[in-house]
Amino acid sequence: MQSRAVLLRRRPVGMPMPDDFELRASDLGPRARGFVRVKNRFVSIDPYMRGRMAGRAGYAASFALGETVPGRTIGEVIESDGPLKPGALVRTLSGWREVFDARPDEIETLDPRGLPPETFLGVAGVSGLSAYAGLTRIAQLKPGETLFVSAASGAVGSVACQLGRIMGARVVGSAGGPAKCAFLREIGVDAVIDYKAESDLAAALARAAPGGIDVYFDNVGGAHLDAAVGALRPFGRIAICGMISAYNADGPQPGPNLMQLVGRSARIEGFLTANHMDLMERFIGYMAGWIASGAVKYRDTIYDGIENAPRAFIGLFRGDNFGKPLIRIA
Amino acid sequence: MQSRAVLLRRRPVGMPMPDDFELRASDLGPRARGFVRVKNRFVSIDPYMRGRMAGRAGYAASFALGETVPGRTIGEVIESDGPLKPGALVRTLSGWREVFDARPDEIETLDPRGLPPETFLGVAGVSGLSAYAGLTRIAQLKPGETLFVSAASGAVGSVACQLGRIMGARVVGSAGGPAKCAFLREIGVDAVIDYKAESDLAAALARAAPGGIDVYFDNVGGAHLDAAVGALRPFGRIAICGMISAYNADGPQPGPNLMQLVGRSARIEGFLTANHMDLMERFIGYMAGWIASGAVKYRDTIYDGIENAPRAFIGLFRGDNFGKPLIRIA
Repeated sequence: MQSRAVLLRRRPVGMPMPDDFELRASDLGPRARGFVRVKNRFVSIDPYMRGRMAGRAGYAASFALGETVPGRTIGEVIESDGPLKPGALVRTLSGWREVFDARPDEIETLDPRGLPPETFLGVAGVSGLSAYAGLTRIAQLKPGETLFVSAASGAVGSVACQLGRIMGARVVGSAGGPAKCAFLREIGVDAVIDYKAESDLAAALARAAPGGIDVYFDNVGGAHLDAAVGALRPFGRIAICGMISAYNADGPQPGPNLMQLVGRSARIEGFLTANHMDLMERFIGYMAGWIASGAVKYRDTIYDGIENAPRAFIGLFRGDNFGKPLIRIA
Repeated sequence: MQSRAVLLRRRPVGMPMPDDFELRASDLGPRARGFVRVKNRFVSIDPYMRGRMAGRAGYAASFALGETVPGRTIGEVIESDGPLKPGALVRTLSGWREVFDARPDEIETLDPRGLPPETFLGVAGVSGLSAYAGLTRIAQLKPGETLFVSAASGAVGSVACQLGRIMGARVVGSAGGPAKCAFLREIGVDAVIDYKAESDLAAALARAAPGGIDVYFDNVGGAHLDAAVGALRPFGRIAICGMISAYNADGPQPGPNLMQLVGRSARIEGFLTANHMDLMERFIGYMAGWIASGAVKYRDTIYDGIENAPRAFIGLFRGDNFGKPLIRIA
């Protein structure tokens, strides 16, 4: 059986390019006894992958050159001689590939709870959990507070906005362009900033949140983080989930002036969702209900075919995608 | 009765200068009935005063031009017709002046608990409490952790180092010059950095704390803060008490790259000791014991005469002072 995979051919410098990746086909041969054969249905495309392609010392090991790009997928068992039957849905870490063989303990069965399976890579997956952990455990958002979210139409940001509303906050969201801003209004964001139409983000934030902000959920860094620190109210909190504006920079960019934290008794905290996986089951239970009731909406960007993984990934840094970019494999 | 006071004559630009201040003598006249007359014995000189001289929007109101510089003092009642008897020691907010009349509710009696009265402006006062609140409530220092303290021979820093040791941490302290570094060794700091002798503070910190640091108590900002963020271990915390390196800057200085907080799940938090005054009584109780047992040592810099308040204040930004700078009034 043939399977195609996307490999990391060389480490991107600056903006990733199609030639940094390579599509390679291989023949899987016969399945070994005790293994299951899984066909990926949906493959996750995530900003954090950029850091692990860089080959710099970081918070997690670098991706190996010449190997399939690792990442989360939702797959379907297509051959098995064990208790996991063909047709079963599974979560895997098999990355940007079509079909693979695994020991049963390398994959995890998925109970879809009435949700479309791809949501477990996005709104009901680690992306959604990032928003949930960031707002509850890190920023400790309280009812009546003002929440600011950047990359607010993205996979994490759009959940952060809607959780903010559910948690009783007033939500200010920033996204680029009229279509994304219209989506933010659709999901109930109280004040929308089109950052591409603003020359002075601090002024735009001051108009959107005249009394300042209590919490900033940062997906972007750069000018958004500077503006947010300047707008923080006393005892404000910033949860840094990521900084997509900086991932393609040559070196570390300077940050905001932190003396501003002192007078406001304010806090900035980074977090890795990997440290909050204990919340996943509880979160999925809530999210299934919110999606069913319409309290949470999502709009993902689906690319068909594993050969499009590099395009979907590069699109992350160009603002091409709505919600979560996913690769669908027919 | 004559009293001299130091007034803010103009707002300092950059490094404060003697001409920014003015010494003015006035005649108090007779004391009004119901007032007490207080002679200040010790007057506090603090870095935070620089921000309030600037006339910029900040966390607290600016000092008024042409008026006595406000601040904490320890005074002695010299005339009274109420229950507060002459000779009683009081805490006041009367600022850089010699003698003043106050309503009894504007001052607070001081129980010296066997300590020299001036310690209540330094090691057993708000300076010491800043270290205590910052390490316990903000940074939540735990036994076995590595603590880094900048301006470590200063009024706040020297208490932070010694509390760190008492709390079971390994303590790395940074100060400028051999005399201050020798004092750090005398108070039990485990590894001492003379930042004036180091061209690369990050490298010096890596040598002093090869495994990284868990907590940084920031009094300085600038290169110290950059180095500390770079050296943070997973789940590290930074408590920002002040940033003396930046107080005379023309505008806000950029800070460290905060993407470094994400992979380490680390936190930076600013605080105002004014929000932690509820800890004061408990803190003084502990501190009286620590001083009595020798667990905490202090070395203040005493200037005689209110006319020296500007010199003591300017000295803060030149690293002239050991521990707490105080004005003593004979």
